[in-house]
Amino acid sequence: MTERGYFVSFEGIDGSGKSTQARLLSDHLRATGRDVVLTREPGGSPGAEHIRKLVLEGATDRWSPETEFLLFTAARRDHLERTVNPALEAGQVVICDRFADSTRLYQGLARADLRVLVDQLHELVIGQEPDLTVLIDMDPETGLSRALARGDGEDRFESFGGDMQRRLRQGFLDLAGEFPDRFVVIDGNRPVEDVFADTRAIVEARLP
Amino acid sequence: MTERGYFVSFEGIDGSGKSTQARLLSDHLRATGRDVVLTREPGGSPGAEHIRKLVLEGATDRWSPETEFLLFTAARRDHLERTVNPALEAGQVVICDRFADSTRLYQGLARADLRVLVDQLHELVIGQEPDLTVLIDMDPETGLSRALARGDGEDRFESFGGDMQRRLRQGFLDLAGEFPDRFVVIDGNRPVEDVFADTRAIVEARLP
Ligand SMILES: Nc1ncnc2c1ncn2[C@@H]1O[C@H](COP(=O)(O)OP(=O)(O)O)[C@@H](O)[C@H]1O
Ligand SMILES: Nc1ncnc2c1ncn2[C@@H]1O[C@H](COP(=O)(O)OP(=O)(O)O)[C@@H](O)[C@H]1O
Ligand SMILES: [Mg+2]
Ligand SMILES: [Mg+2]
Repeated sequence: MTERGYFVSFEGIDGSGKSTQARLLSDHLRATGRDVVLTREPGGSPGAEHIRKLVLEGATDRWSPETEFLLFTAARRDHLERTVNPALEAGQVVICDRFADSTRLYQGLARADLRVLVDQLHELVIGQEPDLTVLIDMDPETGLSRALARGDGEDRFESFGGDMQRRLRQGFLDLAGEFPDRFVVIDGNRPVEDVFADTRAIVEARLP
Repeated sequence: MTERGYFVSFEGIDGSGKSTQARLLSDHLRATGRDVVLTREPGGSPGAEHIRKLVLEGATDRWSPETEFLLFTAARRDHLERTVNPALEAGQVVICDRFADSTRLYQGLARADLRVLVDQLHELVIGQEPDLTVLIDMDPETGLSRALARGDGEDRFESFGGDMQRRLRQGFLDLAGEFPDRFVVIDGNRPVEDVFADTRAIVEARLP
């Protein structure tokens, strides 16, 4: 039987460098001969990408926090079934740009009482965590200006400005405290190569 | 304060006459001066209709039973928030062509163990039942031939044939037994007018 693969997620505020680090890690591991699946949430499978579009396009009040959360959970379930778990079963490394921690945080900030619902639904239909979550911690102002400079216009929380970025940063740090076995926090306020040196060392130390 | 409205759902196998009876009831109540919202599931609000399309278009194995169920639940939540509950709060009669009982049955038949999940998620994010559910019971063969003759091609369970229709019929009767306070079963194997005489009598006896 093939040994089960390894599941790494990247988390952090907009502009913290998740996509950059996930890509660098994927390139690096491929160069060392590993089979890697680089994916993202929401999305990551054809069905989940359709759901992503349905949620992120249109007015911000198009869906209530509860409905949006149900749609994201449907997308996550599809992503796990069609992309993540088949790859893990084939022994591959799965690198995912955001996963359930983003949901815990963003839905919880949309309405504090939703965090309970998020946990309950996660247990009912997801029931799975990454083996390792790399949190790229960084100064919220820098993150915001990087994300705005990138200008792809999809991350809707950017429009909430600096105060939201500060609350998100703190929220991610709180999650790292809540799941200490799986989270590693790295300092994103440094040049890309320095951040990646940390990413690489952490992942290589843990990869089976 | 406005008195809360009244919420009626129609359930039954494909071709049993749900849409026909729902329309006749709506026309009749409007003619007596009531404010009526005639709606349907999956769908019934702009967002939920988008989700309906996402689920019903494409190959039958596009979504797993779990993902499909999460999408239908997101649609139901949106439908309740945007269509059903605002109407009930305004004192209107809401007539809905299928509601949560269809989910209980169809998802449960797709995979028996899903019924538990359906109940848990219903309690978590829906938590609401119709005041009255009219089950149009009928001979499965007649239902199937009526539905096929109609030929709109959207009801995917039709393709499962007569055996599935028989299991669905029995499943609906079982649900009526499970929720006796809210279900009324009528015989759909009769001319439209005769079925409607029952529908009308039952609803008028209960309307506040
Ligand atoms: N360590 C870094 N220093 C400076 N700029 C960075 C760094 N990491 C990423 N960037 C740039 O900042 C922007 C946001 O990075 P990105 O990886 O897209 O962040 P995220 O996916 O977390 O939103 C991109 O234009 C990227 O090239
Ligand atoms: N009592 C009835 N007798 C004969 N035909 C009927 C009756 N009720 C409905 N029909 C016809 O059967 C078909 C299915 O009815 P419909 O109301 O669309 O069923 P459902 O919504 O339950 O699938 C339609 O063509 C409709 O005109
Ligand atoms: Mg990114
Ligand atoms: Mg119909």
